[in-house]
Amino acid sequence: MNDERIRLAHGGGGEMTSRLIREVIFEHLGASAAGDLEDSALLGGPELLEGPGRLAFTTDSYVVRPLFFPGADLGRLAVCGTVNDLAMRGARPLGLSLSLILEEGLKLGVLERVLESAREAAEEAPVQVVTGDTKVVEHGAADGMYITTSGVGAVGGGVDVSLSRARPGDEIVVSGPVGNHAIAVLACREGLSFETEVESDAAPLWGRVEALLSRVGGDLHALNDPTRGGLAASLHAIAAASAVRIEVRERSIPVEPPVAFAAELLGLDVLTLANEGRFVAALAPGTAEGALSVLEGRGARPAIIGRVEEGAGVSLVTAGGGRRVLELPYGEEAPRIC
Amino acid sequence: MNDERIRLAHGGGGEMTSRLIREVIFEHLGASAAGDLEDSALLGGPELLEGPGRLAFTTDSYVVRPLFFPGADLGRLAVCGTVNDLAMRGARPLGLSLSLILEEGLKLGVLERVLESAREAAEEAPVQVVTGDTKVVEHGAADGMYITTSGVGAVGGGVDVSLSRARPGDEIVVSGPVGNHAIAVLACREGLSFETEVESDAAPLWGRVEALLSRVGGDLHALNDPTRGGLAASLHAIAAASAVRIEVRERSIPVEPPVAFAAELLGLDVLTLANEGRFVAALAPGTAEGALSVLEGRGARPAIIGRVEEGAGVSLVTAGGGRRVLELPYGEEAPRIC
Repeated sequence: MNDERIRLAHGGGGEMTSRLIREVIFEHLGASAAGDLEDSALLGGPELLEGPGRLAFTTDSYVVRPLFFPGADLGRLAVCGTVNDLAMRGARPLGLSLSLILEEGLKLGVLERVLESAREAAEEAPVQVVTGDTKVVEHGAADGMYITTSGVGAVGGGVDVSLSRARPGDEIVVSGPVGNHAIAVLACREGLSFETEVESDAAPLWGRVEALLSRVGGDLHALNDPTRGGLAASLHAIAAASAVRIEVRERSIPVEPPVAFAAELLGLDVLTLANEGRFVAALAPGTAEGALSVLEGRGARPAIIGRVEEGAGVSLVTAGGGRRVLELPYGEEAPRIC
Repeated sequence: MNDERIRLAHGGGGEMTSRLIREVIFEHLGASAAGDLEDSALLGGPELLEGPGRLAFTTDSYVVRPLFFPGADLGRLAVCGTVNDLAMRGARPLGLSLSLILEEGLKLGVLERVLESAREAAEEAPVQVVTGDTKVVEHGAADGMYITTSGVGAVGGGVDVSLSRARPGDEIVVSGPVGNHAIAVLACREGLSFETEVESDAAPLWGRVEALLSRVGGDLHALNDPTRGGLAASLHAIAAASAVRIEVRERSIPVEPPVAFAAELLGLDVLTLANEGRFVAALAPGTAEGALSVLEGRGARPAIIGRVEEGAGVSLVTAGGGRRVLELPYGEEAPRIC
């Protein structure tokens, strides 16, 4: 019997999470697991899909604490996060499932507010909740409520977006400023208030990904949404799966001043902070400017932040002009952020 | 703000669960919910599925306590329950997702045992786990571990199995003795031991449903697996969705003697106890005997237990020859049974 114990860092989306998945989960699920570390799995086969399309399938549990925070709540997060995991494979959402674990004593009014936020986010996506489940555990056996959302999506013919398709020469684009979601949750949890309230960026991304695909098509190589572990974890995921090195410029990465200020105050690196409405893309050489023109508007501030090179790992050209390794975070920086 | 509070009975799979789903969940998800009360939703559309097939999609959270009990554990349950929800729509499982909520301090050895059971059940089904997620919450914010499993399945051309397809004259078949799963869990939880240990019936049902479909095809009208709320809840689900009355004979319902004994000792009605490897079927007149011949073997004791009639509700012809209404259980009889 393995007496080692689960630690909060195992759920942080960094090095510890990826070791747990590789060394414990894949190991013990054995041949019954057909997984990689992509946000969604692709299903298909001629008997199912006679057209050129394939099916994307994904799941995520949401355990954010507190349930409500500036700009979003558990319900909005549970819809956006899963829609976004589909979008990161270039998949249009076809339907979501919503499975609730409720703690005895939870006010129905709280559940109702969470469900209404889920509804709003689903309408934005747009997607429908087509199936669900509800379980109740005794008071003290959960923390208010947890939601697990799964999603099924359709990947159109010709779309081939994968963590493993970044190539040397590709340009790296981020769809907007980073760090807002984590700061909104952490500030609310710690009771901090700043002159400018930071709101979560939680938003469904399929519309923007669809627009990007229409513009650049197969030149969109890799997509990842920087949730747990932040931009650093996303860049590492692409670099590892594609067997390339990624170099980004600190000065080019958009960060709103109140987010930078709060991160510094909390002693956190903004590049490791979770987002719920942003993506990072690797685009074929010469297509990034066109991508920006699609992603701009409605207050978005997309940016070209770096390039894919031969090699391995992720490096950062600092604001001062130096170059350093950008580490994969360990995982205990910001627990229960989503 | 609705100040009413969640109670354990809201998760029991009976009257309270169905009210929560109708009055709170569907109400507040509004138009974004395309749900009915089937075990799986059907997805499809010409652009996705050019063949005659459709896609089934389902989700369930598993919060059984304790994690291990005679005959099964959380991992086996999480795979079987979701495979079975697909099978209840006549769907062959294509892939599962597994989302873990782990409590800080959980031994990795416990997680490993649960995952190994999940693997065994997946191999039996057969199905692969194609995607997943892992979250960690603080010690005290969960109860060891919870698993949410979703599944995607393919419904072949010509298969049309639904809660709403039972018709007057149909015969009602149960695939084996009822009540074993709930008694195995409750006896283990309460520290009761009986002369004959009762084991959970948790098993993946797709193989048996597939065999049944090969034999009777479109004469298989409705299927339901009697999990929370037991046989009584399954019969009510079919009767309500099909707008028919179902009459079953108490003497015909297979119950193993140690299960009947334990249920009586615990003051529980065996017809409301959860199963995880049984199904109830409504079959066109004249096809039930053929169905039994397919379902027999390997120790199974399927039985014809009743008939579909015009009307509404569920009635029971008692062992003594009387007739009474079989009520939908309220929901607090056996909490956290799956």
